[in-house]
Formats: sequence, C-alpha cells, structure tokens
Amino acid sequence: MDTAAAAVIPRPGAPIEIRRYSLPALEPGSVLLKVLASEVCGTDVHLWHGRLDGVPYPLIPGHVSVGEVVDLRDPVADVEGQPIRVGDRVTFLDVHRTCHRCWYCLVAKASTRCPHRRVYGITYGAEEAPGLAGGWAEYLYLRPDTRILPLAPGVSPDIWIGGGCGLTTAVHAIELAGIRLGDRVLIQGSGPVGLSACALALLSGAGWVGVIGAPELRLQAAQRIGADWTLNVLETTPEERVRAVRNACAGRGPDIVIEASGNPEAIREGCAMARDAGRYVIVGQYTDNGEVTLNPHHLINRKHLEIRGCWGSDFSHVYRAMEILARFDQRIQWSSLITRRYSLQEASTALADVEARHAVKAVIQPHPDQGS
Amino acid sequence: MDTAAAAVIPRPGAPIEIRRYSLPALEPGSVLLKVLASEVCGTDVHLWHGRLDGVPYPLIPGHVSVGEVVDLRDPVADVEGQPIRVGDRVTFLDVHRTCHRCWYCLVAKASTRCPHRRVYGITYGAEEAPGLAGGWAEYLYLRPDTRILPLAPGVSPDIWIGGGCGLTTAVHAIELAGIRLGDRVLIQGSGPVGLSACALALLSGAGWVGVIGAPELRLQAAQRIGADWTLNVLETTPEERVRAVRNACAGRGPDIVIEASGNPEAIREGCAMARDAGRYVIVGQYTDNGEVTLNPHHLINRKHLEIRGCWGSDFSHVYRAMEILARFDQRIQWSSLITRRYSLQEASTALADVEARHAVKAVIQPHPDQGS
Amino acid sequence: MDTAAAAVIPRPGAPIEIRRYSLPALEPGSVLLKVLASEVCGTDVHLWHGRLDGVPYPLIPGHVSVGEVVDLRDPVADVEGQPIRVGDRVTFLDVHRTCHRCWYCLVAKASTRCPHRRVYGITYGAEEAPGLAGGWAEYLYLRPDTRILPLAPGVSPDIWIGGGCGLTTAVHAIELAGIRLGDRVLIQGSGPVGLSACALALLSGAGWVGVIGAPELRLQAAQRIGADWTLNVLETTPEERVRAVRNACAGRGPDIVIEASGNPEAIREGCAMARDAGRYVIVGQYTDNGEVTLNPHHLINRKHLEIRGCWGSDFSHVYRAMEILARFDQRIQWSSLITRRYSLQEASTALADVEARHAVKAVIQPHPDQGS
Amino acid sequence: MDTAAAAVIPRPGAPIEIRRYSLPALEPGSVLLKVLASEVCGTDVHLWHGRLDGVPYPLIPGHVSVGEVVDLRDPVADVEGQPIRVGDRVTFLDVHRTCHRCWYCLVAKASTRCPHRRVYGITYGAEEAPGLAGGWAEYLYLRPDTRILPLAPGVSPDIWIGGGCGLTTAVHAIELAGIRLGDRVLIQGSGPVGLSACALALLSGAGWVGVIGAPELRLQAAQRIGADWTLNVLETTPEERVRAVRNACAGRGPDIVIEASGNPEAIREGCAMARDAGRYVIVGQYTDNGEVTLNPHHLINRKHLEIRGCWGSDFSHVYRAMEILARFDQRIQWSSLITRRYSLQEASTALADVEARHAVKAVIQPHPDQGS
Repeated sequence: MDTAAAAVIPRPGAPIEIRRYSLPALEPGSVLLKVLASEVCGTDVHLWHGRLDGVPYPLIPGHVSVGEVVDLRDPVADVEGQPIRVGDRVTFLDVHRTCHRCWYCLVAKASTRCPHRRVYGITYGAEEAPGLAGGWAEYLYLRPDTRILPLAPGVSPDIWIGGGCGLTTAVHAIELAGIRLGDRVLIQGSGPVGLSACALALLSGAGWVGVIGAPELRLQAAQRIGADWTLNVLETTPEERVRAVRNACAGRGPDIVIEASGNPEAIREGCAMARDAGRYVIVGQYTDNGEVTLNPHHLINRKHLEIRGCWGSDFSHVYRAMEILARFDQRIQWSSLITRRYSLQEASTALADVEARHAVKAVIQPHPDQGS
Repeated sequence: MDTAAAAVIPRPGAPIEIRRYSLPALEPGSVLLKVLASEVCGTDVHLWHGRLDGVPYPLIPGHVSVGEVVDLRDPVADVEGQPIRVGDRVTFLDVHRTCHRCWYCLVAKASTRCPHRRVYGITYGAEEAPGLAGGWAEYLYLRPDTRILPLAPGVSPDIWIGGGCGLTTAVHAIELAGIRLGDRVLIQGSGPVGLSACALALLSGAGWVGVIGAPELRLQAAQRIGADWTLNVLETTPEERVRAVRNACAGRGPDIVIEASGNPEAIREGCAMARDAGRYVIVGQYTDNGEVTLNPHHLINRKHLEIRGCWGSDFSHVYRAMEILARFDQRIQWSSLITRRYSLQEASTALADVEARHAVKAVIQPHPDQGS
Repeated sequence: MDTAAAAVIPRPGAPIEIRRYSLPALEPGSVLLKVLASEVCGTDVHLWHGRLDGVPYPLIPGHVSVGEVVDLRDPVADVEGQPIRVGDRVTFLDVHRTCHRCWYCLVAKASTRCPHRRVYGITYGAEEAPGLAGGWAEYLYLRPDTRILPLAPGVSPDIWIGGGCGLTTAVHAIELAGIRLGDRVLIQGSGPVGLSACALALLSGAGWVGVIGAPELRLQAAQRIGADWTLNVLETTPEERVRAVRNACAGRGPDIVIEASGNPEAIREGCAMARDAGRYVIVGQYTDNGEVTLNPHHLINRKHLEIRGCWGSDFSHVYRAMEILARFDQRIQWSSLITRRYSLQEASTALADVEARHAVKAVIQPHPDQGS
Repeated sequence: MDTAAAAVIPRPGAPIEIRRYSLPALEPGSVLLKVLASEVCGTDVHLWHGRLDGVPYPLIPGHVSVGEVVDLRDPVADVEGQPIRVGDRVTFLDVHRTCHRCWYCLVAKASTRCPHRRVYGITYGAEEAPGLAGGWAEYLYLRPDTRILPLAPGVSPDIWIGGGCGLTTAVHAIELAGIRLGDRVLIQGSGPVGLSACALALLSGAGWVGVIGAPELRLQAAQRIGADWTLNVLETTPEERVRAVRNACAGRGPDIVIEASGNPEAIREGCAMARDAGRYVIVGQYTDNGEVTLNPHHLINRKHLEIRGCWGSDFSHVYRAMEILARFDQRIQWSSLITRRYSLQEASTALADVEARHAVKAVIQPHPDQGS
C-alpha cells in the first residue's frame, strides 16, 4: 500500500473522478487512517456546485469521517492524554488549525470564527501537500495537532456517521437553545441537523418537540425518534404552519424554536411561531440562499425575542456528541438515519441522492468489505 | 380644588384640547399627585396620529411623570416598605396591573408581556372611571397597586424627566447588552433612548462608544455626554456607515450594537456592523415602521450573532434609573436633554417640536410656576 | 358538612391531636378543597420538634396537598386564565402572599426571599382566621390569590404527592444546576429531594448520574429510577466517597454536584468531589444542622468552583413539576416513592416513620376511602 | 551583552542572590526582552517562604513584567496578527503552554485549570534550559508561543505594573461578579487585587463601592480611587463589620461581595454580608491559609447565595486590562499604587516591604536608569 484511491471533485459542477494519490510521509504528531466511513452531507452538495467561496479545487470531500489508525508518528494523544495506537478506531474534529493566538480565539473565545482555521474535506485542496485531507478516500492523513477522538465503546462507525456532521452541529445549537425541563421546542427542518436537534431536544427533557419538514420519509424518522408532532412543509402555507404550531403550544407558541431548514423564509415563520420572550436558534443558514423580509416591530422587538445565530462546532461539541451516542444511541438509533452506503465509485450517485433528498443520510465506504 | 385641567387627544389626528375633569374620590391604596412635570415622548406623537392599536380615545397622554403627593388613602408604601406621605415628590412605573397570576408573569417571568398590563397615559381612556390617568394634567390619580418611587435626594423633577421614558428603556436595553469593561459599543439612534443608552454604556465601562444619528443637535448631546465617536445618518450611505463603524472598531466591528432608531432598515446595518460572535440589542422598534430585508446567512448565522429584542421596562428598570440618576447625573446631566418646557395649553406645540426633532426632550409643566 | 377534622401539632414535641374546626365562610377568590392527599415531608418532622423559628402553634401541617374543589367564590382562575370549577382536582403553590411590591420581589426578582410570604401548613397557625390552612385536614381553605394548578391529565393525586415538595424543590435545583447533555452529575442524599434530583438529572440528558445516600431502600429507589451508580453513605468514609466519585468520573469528578442531604459535612465532600471549574448546587440545608469546616483555597478558589445556594421554589417550579409528571411519570413512576398511606389519626406514626427513614415518602389521606 | 544578572531565590527561606546567566540562543518564535519593570507581588513572598507546591528552586521570580524587545526570531505577532518588532515595549501572559489539547482546555473551556500550563517566574526553574524565565533579571527570554501584548499608547511600564497581576486577576473577578449599573459592591481586602477590584467596580457603574482592609495607607488609596466607604479590618470585630456593611447597604447588604483578602475567615463574613440572593466572588484565597467554619443553612442555602471561586487569569483578562488602562488610567492612576522601586540588588528589601505591607505595590527595575 503506497497509494490511495480518492473521489475527487475536479472543479465546480464537474463529475466526480477517482484519482490515486501517494501516501504522505508521516510528520511527528500525524496519523494515517484507513477510512471506514465518511459522510455525504448537504455541504458536499454545495461544494460540488461550487457554492462555497474560496474552496481549492480539485477537492477530496469528506469532512466527517471514521477510520482505523494504520500508522502514526508520536506523540499523538486524545483529549484525556491517552496515546492513540495503531488499530484504534477514531474520528476527529474536521476543523483544523484553530490558532489559539488570534483575537477571536483568545479574547472573544469564539474559535469557530478563527480566521486561521482550516477544514478537512473543504479547505484543503487535493493537491496541497501533504495531501489526502478528505474522507472520500481509502486513506486519510491527519496532520499534526488534529483533535482526535477514539470511538467510545458501543459506538460503531455507522453510529458515528449516522450522527455525523448534523449531530455535532445540533449539539452546538442545543447548547445555545438552553432548553429547560418541560419546554416546548419546535424544529424547522428535517434534514440531518433538524433530526438530531429533535433527538437532542427530547433527550434534554423538552415537554413537547415538533418538527416541520419534508419529505415524509424524514418526518417518519422524526416520529420514530420520538417527535410529538410533525408537519409537512410542502403541504401547508406559512400562515397555516404558524397557526398550527401556536395551537399546538398552548396558543402561545413554543418556548424555543430551532431553525435547521436552510431556507431564509423559514426565519420569518420561526420568529412568528416562537412565544413572546422566547428564544430562536438559527443554525440552518449554512450557505447563502438569499434574503428574508420581516417586520422587526412585530417579530423581534414587541415579542422580546432572543435570536442566536449558530456557526460551526468546536471540539467540545464533537466530544459531547460521542458521549451522547454512547449513552443514548440505543434509544435514538442514529445509524437508522443512514439510508444507503456507497463505494468511492458511487460518490456521484450519493451526491445526487442527497440533493434529491432521497437519502436522509448517505455514507461513503471506501473499503466496502469492511464491516461497520 | 375639585377639578383638574388636562390636555386631551380627542381622537387620532385631532388637535389637543384642554378639558376639565373632576378629581376622583380616593380608594384605599390610591394617591393623588399634583403633576410637576410629564414627558412628551415619541410615543405620544404616535398616539396623536393614532398609530398604536387599541388606544381608548379621548386620551390624556403622559406616561412618565413626576408629581407631589397631595392626598392619599393608606396603605401606600414604596418598595422599601416606607410609607408614602403627603408632600413627597414621587414618580411611578407607568405600567400598571401587571397581574402576577398569568403564565407570562409566573412561568415565563416576562412581566413586560403580561396581557393584563395597563399603562398610564396610553391604555386608560380619559373617560374611564375613576379618571385622570395621564400626566398631561394638573392632577394625576394613581390607582391602588401602582408602584411608586420617591425621587432620590438630589434628583429633581427635571432630572427625572430628563432621563424619563428613554432612560428606563435604556436601562433595560443595557441589561440585555451585557457590556463588559472595555467592550466597544455602537448605538444606532440619537433620540432619548439612544442618548441614554450612550450614557449607560459609558457608565458601564465600555472601551469605546459610538453613536449614529441626527440631527447635529442630538449628536452634540452625545458628544457632551462623552461619546467617543458620532456619525450623521443623514449625510452617509448605509455602506459608508458600516465601513466607518468597522474601521473605528479594529476592523472587526463593535462587540455590542444597540438599535434605538425606530427605523427597520437600521437592523440590516446593525447586523452588518457587529463583530462576529457579537451581540445586538434591538430596542427602537416600538411602533410598526415596516419591514427590513436581510441575508440571514451572512448577517446572523455565519456571524454567530446574538440578537436580543427588548420590550418595555419593569419596576426594576425604573428603580435602577433612579439609582443611576442619583449617582451619575452630575456627570451626565440628563436634564440638559430637556430642550423646552411647555404649558398644558402648549401641548400641540410640544408634540410638533418632538415630531420635527426640534427638541431632544420636551416636558409638559401643568403648573408652570412650580420650580423643577 | 360544616366542620372538618384536622391533625394538629398542639405545641413543639407534643403528640398530634385530632381537632375539629368550622369551615370558613368563603371570601371572593377563595376555594374550599376536600383534601385527597397531603404530604408528610421532612419539614413536618422539624415542625413537630419545633426546629423552625416563628411557627405559630397549634399548627395544622401539610404544605403540599391535592384536593377536590367543593366550593369557591369567583373569580378563581388558573395560570392560563381558565376558571377553576367545583369538582376539579387541583394542587397549589404553598407559598402564599408573595407581595410583588417589595425590593426582593420587584428589584432582585428573588420572590423566594420576599419577607411577606406565608406558607400553608407552616406559617399559618391553626387558630388564625379564617383557618384550615394546612393539608392534614378533611378540608383545606385556599385564601384569595393562592396560585392554583389543576392536575394535568394522567397525573393522579398519588403521582403529584409522589413528587411533592421534593420534586418542586428539585426542579428549582436542576434549574440552577444548568445540566448540559452528557454532563456527569452526582447527587448527595437519597431523600425525596435527592431522588427527584436524580430523576430530573436523568431526564435532562446527563451522561452519568450517581447518588450517595442511605438506607438501601432509598438507593434501590435511585437505581430503579435509573441512577448509574449509588454508594451507601453509612458504609463509607468521606475520603472513600470522594475517591470513589472521582474515579467514577474520569478521575476528575462530576461536572455538577447537587447537595440534597441536609448534612453540613456533606458540603466539604461535595466541593472536593466536583471537578475543577464545576458547579455545586446546595439545596439540602433547609434547617440549621450546624456548621462545616472547609479549606477555601483548595475547595473553592483553586478549583474555580461555582456554588449556588437554592432556597424554596416559586410557582414556575410547581408548574414545571406538573409538566414533568404529565410527560415523564410513566418512566420515573414517582408514586412508587410512596411507601405508605396514613389516615389523619395515624399522623404521629407517619411522622415517626419519616423520621426513622422507614418511608421514602409518607402521605396523609384524610378520606381514606377516596381513591387516588 | 551575553549574560544577564538576575535576582534568584536559591531555596525556600534563603536570602536572594544575584546570579548571572548566559543569554539563550533564540528559537523561532521567541523574543528576548530587556526588562524595564517587574512586579513584586504577594505570590513572590509566598515563593520566598516556599509556600507553593512544586516550585523548582533556584528560581528567578517575576511573573508580571514589562520589557523592550531587543531581539526575536520570526514569526512573532500580537493577537491582532501585527508583527512584534525590536524596540517594542511589551508585556505578556505569564501563563504559558496552556495546551489547547486537554479536556480542561477543549471541553470544559477552563484553560486556567489546564494541567500543562507553566508560569514564568513561578514554575520554570532558573536552571531549566533555555533559562531566564523570570522578570527579576536584566533580560527575560520569552519562549515560542508566549502571548505577547504591546503596551497601548499612553500606557507606560509604570502604569502596566501599577495594575500588574492584581489588575488582571481583578478583571477576571469582575467578569464573574457580573455587576449591573447601580449595584452595591463590597470588596474584602485592600491589597493590589482588592484595590483594582474597587477601581473596576466603580468603572462598571456600581452604585456604591465599599472596601474593608488595612493598613490606612491602602484604605486611603481606595478612597483616592473613589471608594464610597472604607473600614479598617484591624479596628473592628467581625460582627461590627457585618453590621456596618449591611447598614451601609439599605440594611440588606451588598448585591455583590468580592473577597480579595487571602484570609479564610473573611469568607464567613462575606457570606454574612451579601444580601439574600446576592453573589460572592472568592478570588483572594490564592495560597493555603487554612480553613473556615461556616453555617451553610444560614449563609448559603437560606440566603440563596451564589458563590464563584475565581482562579488565575487568561489572555482575555490581560488584554482587557490593557484596554482598561489605556482608557481609564487617567481617572484611576494605577501607577500611584507603586510605593517604591527597587534594583535587583534590593529584591530582598522589596519582598520584606511587601510582606510587612509597607508597600501597596513594589517594583523591581533591573536597569534603574531606564525611565518608566
């Protein structure tokens, strides 16, 4: 083994190609992973269409991945100081090189806004040395200082990827939501972030959790997870949705609304749904999908509404996601969100399925014979 | 004395009339005030034009007032349990009958959203018994359970009214702003709320306070109070303002922005000005001035922005306003915000002056010979 | 029916007596309840022994009770504004006459410290008109302005009393604890407050919940509720307990410790157990059980520990307790904490059983034939 | 210049010696400072007496220092990304090597508890290569990754050291105190931390600030800074102090108490002084001075008191301290807290003066001819 196959986006809009890359020589503190599973998430569809700025094509996508350590150069330890060893099954924080030196890291303590951060599978080009920086490949090279997390006992690669990027993002959103026991929580959106937010709201002791989304496949997933109430966004008007949600919540509306839809228009609805003096977490506007028009007197000021924009996640969210999966996956069964598994060669199909929402969650398995 | 003259808005848009009303018979717990000063605030202009819903005309305006106690029926005490006595100079929370029984009062602890609250000078009609429920009158009848606050030593009626409704509102907004020592704070708007927010940000130890507003008269008031930086909104484009503010704040923008402009368009600018992971308090959208269009990806989500809508004030804000005036008025000189004093007969002129922004702050003095 | 039997503590230390009292004439806003169940809690044992200051004997104990409305004088409504009707099964906030006028209510917003508050079953003497102000009686008279809460569908009197005073107190403590998904939580004490805190920590998504207490009966209850770990306080030394807890929590200690033991010595242990930069909620020191000696350098300062003292509860906690029971009782089965039911005549036995910890929870049923 | 003189503590209790060390060869990212001023703080007295565990003697003390950059190896930048240059006057965060990899750094986000942190002047022995790691020396070697902060315009070395360790610690304590405009704040202790906490409370808009301490010299400094009230701890009993403070604060006690005394007994008093539902920040127990005995029922639980232990400071506190000095030093005049300047040869005298409290603040100037 001295080369690795990878699925590559050559340039925005072009078909995925399989290319082979040499395995890098390991630097001290680096790790070589045999990729067991890598997520296909909505961001990858955006990357395919070139909707994110500053992405260096050609690109090996795959920011959330699980692998088996096949080689490493000391010292490499986890957050508890335990050495990582060959054979360990691990995941890692895809956000890399948060600098711990800049104003955002040190003064604002908002490391998700660190301008020096890089992201595996998104901001490292396929040809940037030392290479193999995306998960849609047989092998993945983790550079020194990558924050590595072993899979907890009972958490299989499938379970981790079933949660995936959506779960860690939802962990951050739930932290901002500040749910108290008995709160009513409404989730806008039934994609991976929305479904994980639904699960986490339930696990946080919400008194009622509703989900608005589509298609039915995803709303059924929400119900299976335990949602108290679902509504199909394709079969209702905004006015009907606002009325239905408020009626379902004592006529006042939910204590907390979490936007995970990606649709700017959802924001006007979400403000209208939340009860007075409630809280609204906006986590779904990850890409630029345009503008929204709203009346600030009625929807923000007079409502005494608190709105919290949520961007990205840091290691604490990845760590908590692992704890949550270890404890609660038996109840939520995140791996059931995986609709289908794909080989590297099927990466284009995987992207098309995610884009068409045929899949709740798609997974690339570069070594299809490897159990998960 | 058994009747009192009052300035009355007979119906939306009609000229102010002077009418006389009988003094009510006092119920237990009530107080009769000889009005020394009553504020003319922007809300009164809205009331004149009929822009607020559900207001019972004819109406005696005047929600923030100072008076001398001329009669009372026991028991009437202040928040410390000290009895109120004839001769005391007092003010009071204009919001009345917050119920302490409803879901908003007891569970959400958001008493400014209590549906049972009434407001002196706004929601009590002139002909609703027992009457005299607005401050633009020779006498004002405070019903039982009104929260009364004696003027602190050194706080004259002029000083209290110089702060007035804008100060108590700004106290609430500053509470939501959560300023830390050294934070950069930008205020949008230079009316009474904006100027008081500027003063309170300075008193809170902000490292830099900027004010955007108009006309020059008000920006000069901001400078006199101590603003580090002002910008005339009438002489700049939105893009220029955003750029100027960010440049003035390390290229990143202010840690905290407080909107006190009443202009929906200001909100898009305010979001753009705030630094990433900053905070934005929206307090100025007291009436419906229309909609704003904004891009939630760029302005909320990606910025990791926190937005806090602020509605009204409760007794704690009135109480803190008094403490602030007692301690800091010598430095800020709130009474200097009073541009002109008006008799009851001049109430129409006062409203016109406030509407034309000829006055920073206008005051009705029903007994013009009474010093303040 | 014009008199009601009641169990009365004639004076501290004296045996309980059964006395009969006339039913009061109803004032507007008052309610007469036929008592279905009233809790015997640890506080009642303290009252029996005269350990609380300022209690007016003779006293009808019973601060947490459920009853059926048999008479009322309008207007009486619940927190949603819905009228209370004859035949409704209701409970109520035992804390009465929180004044909404004093500095603690209005400025500090700390109504549990309102000096005017009175408490059914504790601060109203049996002979203070209009009487029947404790739950250990056939009938209970709820004065005007008592905050009344109907039992939610599915919440029987047994379920409510199974939660009882301990649950509402635990709701307050959990609010102060600020548990995040995956946090490790250690509870000191396995009485009604500790067991409910254990349940609520689990429902809040804690990643691990441990309980230290005694006797075994109660630790078994904790295990049945879902505690991950229990330790018998009677069979271990303080050093062993600290070591065992830290070992069970990654060697660092729990993120959050909740003291619900009533033993001052527990506080030194709790500080030592909590992880650095953790949080410690002290809710169990309801009566004066003496002092504790601790080293503030090691246990507070150097640990960067946050400690939150928790006193009493307000209506929001009662309301949330009801929501929690309606949603989660099927999982937790609070009514299973009821060890035994007692008639009014058996009140002394009930107190003795609680004092001897033979009962996790004892209930007085003044009408033993009434199902619960 | 190829050696530097340094004042060295050879071993606990031994007299300070002047020793000479070779200047280290610069690694990439390192900086050589000519020391202009280095603080003598209470911690240095503790170091002299061997009261801190794990300190590697011989030791060059001096953790808070200002110097002029005389050499560096790129890249070295400040928090804004601006390169540091030869000739710059800078200070730095004495806490070094916070790891950004461990559980405390990444999950708890409590970097002051990072077990890998090292501290200039405290945990680096004089003989640990590359050496010169304390400020009581002609030259100071800043290792790679030290967080360096240029002095802001108008902030002289004297002003920075006048604030010094006490100011950055107080910035952290004030952050935890969460002062709101008009709050009453009581400071226990009038050393450098207490005096800076007094200044910061005033700058935060406190409505009243009191200081309890000794000797008179320090209380006079508090008064000059603007304290509203001072009390000599040596001339009063604990009961008198508690009564006097409560009387000075509306009979209720301060909203916030900040302990900066270092005396364990102060904690019982501070709990007793704080108003019900108030907040207590404990920052002064930096070394182990023994235990305190207190009654948790009366002093924590029933008071509904919140206690926040405060340990160390991070870069954000150093950064804010600089912003505060740049803006507010003209008002507070921190440099006036410097009682006397000492040469390296006078280091023993400096320690003796600080220990005897003859000096509020003592400064070592290794190059006495260098203006400050």
